[in-house]
Amino acid sequence: MQNELTSPLLEKAVCRLSQLPGIGRKTALRLALYMLRREEKDTVELGQALIDLRTNINYCRVCHNISETELCPICASPVRDSSVICVVESVRDVMSVEATGQFGGLYHVLGALISPVEGISPGMIEIASLEERVKAGGISEVILALGATPDGETTNYYIYRRLSKYPVKITELARGVSIGNEIEYTDELTLGRSIINRIPFDAI
Amino acid sequence: MQNELTSPLLEKAVCRLSQLPGIGRKTALRLALYMLRREEKDTVELGQALIDLRTNINYCRVCHNISETELCPICASPVRDSSVICVVESVRDVMSVEATGQFGGLYHVLGALISPVEGISPGMIEIASLEERVKAGGISEVILALGATPDGETTNYYIYRRLSKYPVKITELARGVSIGNEIEYTDELTLGRSIINRIPFDAI
Repeated sequence: MQNELTSPLLEKAVCRLSQLPGIGRKTALRLALYMLRREEKDTVELGQALIDLRTNINYCRVCHNISETELCPICASPVRDSSVICVVESVRDVMSVEATGQFGGLYHVLGALISPVEGISPGMIEIASLEERVKAGGISEVILALGATPDGETTNYYIYRRLSKYPVKITELARGVSIGNEIEYTDELTLGRSIINRIPFDAI
Repeated sequence: MQNELTSPLLEKAVCRLSQLPGIGRKTALRLALYMLRREEKDTVELGQALIDLRTNINYCRVCHNISETELCPICASPVRDSSVICVVESVRDVMSVEATGQFGGLYHVLGALISPVEGISPGMIEIASLEERVKAGGISEVILALGATPDGETTNYYIYRRLSKYPVKITELARGVSIGNEIEYTDELTLGRSIINRIPFDAI
């Protein structure tokens, strides 16, 4: 089953599919044979949708979120609070924060986190453009919504240092016990942080 | 996260990807964002490979296996034994049998199994063309290599009845204990069949 397939067309499709994350050669073959079985239209539309996605997509010139237009719908919205910027790592995180329904400001997508291990330096991600936005004024708060990982902490601290000279409040996401989690199964660091940052019971 | 995505291009790609078996909306989104991140060339080639696969693929006019040419490489091979036909359900099964390295004859791909439940009647699969091949002569054995399922058994029996008037040996795959399996964990039906069809110890 690991041999080269007899059909070059099938071999090529399987090979390309198996480059995707989480898809091995067996799954790729199963998907390719499924695409052969179903309506021709469906498979052609899938292929075209992937090509269009990659070649026609654009990013918002202000926040770097995915956008079909020069300014994304969030940045262009008149009802969003343009004085608050939520800094996230990726487009995926914008979707996650939007899904909470708890944030009405604008975003800034860094593209990646500062990572000495992966060789990603501050100059390679969208930090300078964030500073420009803050420098231009009209921003009262920058919320750092990066992952609670070493790279996330490093990036948080770097941005904090870089923006601290501007008159803007810099906050980060609360760390604490996940909703639905037992205390018993919460790791010590998280539990420790949730004790230090405890809040008045009537706060929410 | 279940909401419509803000980008129509992304929404379309995610929607098409999530139609594939085993790929839900979350995985589809992860794949789509991965495709956005990597080299444009890679994603365009994937899309094109899927379109080519579906629009340019052909099937062998004799055995109905996938083939770029009118006659597939197996049917056209001078070294294969053209007097033995192995009947399988799908293209996938041809690969599985080939992978064993134990079969040197030709194939016949039915396309599906007879299934009263799914409304698949004998006329909807490649049984008439199998009969034509046998009728044309030169075939000494037809091996029924269909799954050991009710639909497989039904199809086996139907083909057996239909071909029994021709001077051809009809065999089916041995059913028995899987290599590596414990007797304790082998189901009763399989174990029973393996006792009925026991073979001389020096047979292999």
